Amino acid sequence: MADPRSSFVIRHSSLTIGVDIGGTTVKLGVIDAVSGRVAAESSFPTPQTGSHNVASAIAEQACEIKSAYPEIDRLGVGTPGSMNRDRSLVCYPPNLLGWKEEPLQAYLKELLPEFNRIEVDNDANVAALAESRHGAGRGLSHFLLVTLGTGIGGAIYYTPPPMERSGIGGGWGVVPRGEIYRGQSGGAGEFGHTSIDLNGPPCNCGSRGCIEAYLGQHYLSERTRKKMMDNPSISSVLRAEKNELTPKIIADTMNAGDAFARSVFEEAGMLLGAALANVANLLDMHVFILGGGVAEAGTVLFDSTLATLRSRVLANLRPIVEIRKAHLGNRAGIVGAAMLVAD
Amino acid sequence: MADPRSSFVIRHSSLTIGVDIGGTTVKLGVIDAVSGRVAAESSFPTPQTGSHNVASAIAEQACEIKSAYPEIDRLGVGTPGSMNRDRSLVCYPPNLLGWKEEPLQAYLKELLPEFNRIEVDNDANVAALAESRHGAGRGLSHFLLVTLGTGIGGAIYYTPPPMERSGIGGGWGVVPRGEIYRGQSGGAGEFGHTSIDLNGPPCNCGSRGCIEAYLGQHYLSERTRKKMMDNPSISSVLRAEKNELTPKIIADTMNAGDAFARSVFEEAGMLLGAALANVANLLDMHVFILGGGVAEAGTVLFDSTLATLRSRVLANLRPIVEIRKAHLGNRAGIVGAAMLVAD
Repeated sequence: MADPRSSFVIRHSSLTIGVDIGGTTVKLGVIDAVSGRVAAESSFPTPQTGSHNVASAIAEQACEIKSAYPEIDRLGVGTPGSMNRDRSLVCYPPNLLGWKEEPLQAYLKELLPEFNRIEVDNDANVAALAESRHGAGRGLSHFLLVTLGTGIGGAIYYTPPPMERSGIGGGWGVVPRGEIYRGQSGGAGEFGHTSIDLNGPPCNCGSRGCIEAYLGQHYLSERTRKKMMDNPSISSVLRAEKNELTPKIIADTMNAGDAFARSVFEEAGMLLGAALANVANLLDMHVFILGGGVAEAGTVLFDSTLATLRSRVLANLRPIVEIRKAHLGNRAGIVGAAMLVAD
Repeated sequence: MADPRSSFVIRHSSLTIGVDIGGTTVKLGVIDAVSGRVAAESSFPTPQTGSHNVASAIAEQACEIKSAYPEIDRLGVGTPGSMNRDRSLVCYPPNLLGWKEEPLQAYLKELLPEFNRIEVDNDANVAALAESRHGAGRGLSHFLLVTLGTGIGGAIYYTPPPMERSGIGGGWGVVPRGEIYRGQSGGAGEFGHTSIDLNGPPCNCGSRGCIEAYLGQHYLSERTRKKMMDNPSISSVLRAEKNELTPKIIADTMNAGDAFARSVFEEAGMLLGAALANVANLLDMHVFILGGGVAEAGTVLFDSTLATLRSRVLANLRPIVEIRKAHLGNRAGIVGAAMLVAD
């Protein structure tokens, strides 16, 4: 056991392992839970042979890390897919082939009996935890994190009211701390599947007009390609990029001065702002933190998003609403995963 | 002080006053907080001369009630308008002329010093509390209450996760109780101003396509009237009702067998279902409780709403989502107001 009187030991006992499972890569980090600093990092290609093999590969790396940092006994994992209410199951992650309802936490606990605490959570929730403690959400009581990637993820960060108001037992005057809003069965935060046009373009989820059906990377590329086809008078260097219209290429073209590429992100911001306004009004949400590849489009996207958001929220929210860029980039996954077990 | 050994005294000490402020009428009830039973009721026309005069009229009635039930020392109030975070101010209620940011709680405390506890909250929040304790929400951990009236109100009822998960201090294993989700400054729940079509009809709030801009009573009447004008071939007894196309008249016409009137509520349900699907996905919300005048349209509206909701939510929610009718009718206001001070 760590000796609480030794600052050296306390310092080291705040180290935890954070794991970020992606469709192509699994990242691991040794994270100082107090500062959010990444002490060490590694990664390996995601095994495409099911969740147990992913767990085994994580466990192998975790054991190696533990041989270098023997005091580490906590491990957190962020993963695509929604969780059930007690977070024992990872449910149907879109980018992990063959995963259905996978008991990832149980697999890891079995493979790593020397770890005292292992937690698994959805990757957007994990990124929100990271931003709340060490990123763009520091000091905020409430925010919506939006990840603009292949899919559009979301996580609702909130702070419950003080005890004497909330009706929760267990003591008066206890100052509550922020947490992720999870909903009845643990799946809350699916901002990507809120619709801004009930008759809009079809979404893979089966509905129409979901913000993901406009701004998910493949949808955004396809929309852009189609606009160029429909309007041959557009003079754009994007025409040369017929096969790989990624958001990054569109952004690079915009930054080189192309007006059409700029209009793509202006429209994207207008659509995103309309979707965020619904969340602002429904949840009295003031701050929106944007991360992921599309967020790299920068001020054109952010300015357009904020202008539309302001024009559509209730009057009392207009001077208050705010868009921020996520700070932690692609380290949000490992840092946030470590936060799951940091307490 | 009440003697806790006397069951008679305990019984009586559970009585509280619930007040429901409306644009035209203020209702008061003596409510048994344990059973939700209404022991006595009265009402008076809402003074149109500002919040202090409303407070004075309530205080006068409360004193009369107290002379009949001297043990009552708690009073709760539901009011239109959103509240600030600590619920000391009623902010810009749409149907109370001249109210801006009104310190209703302070007025009542000053006028009723013999009352130990006085609380004020938004009317939709109050109705949700009533339904959660004594109505259609009994036993539910999460639901959205929607009030379909002149405006479309909403209240988010949720239950925080158990302590050991939530990161709230103050003890382990404490079972949390349901409460209203309030958001950063207390205004959460504005479901009426979530948009289902970013280019939809203009709403009084300044945005477009808000569900209130389709289903608020005046909007619904106007939409219906316009459809009849646009299509003179519609054979409908509604034509005779040119000046008063209230939801009740449309419903009565539907119940008498009119196909056009039926289509009004089928479309209303389709629109409402699309708006609810956004909440279901964003908040992992499974149950929706509908109250207010338009909800009286009955099964045609409810069936259409549920069919659209099911067709638009994420696959895992399809078998789970549920629409319920509010149970407490126009007593939800006084019962829920009493629940504010029932603990």
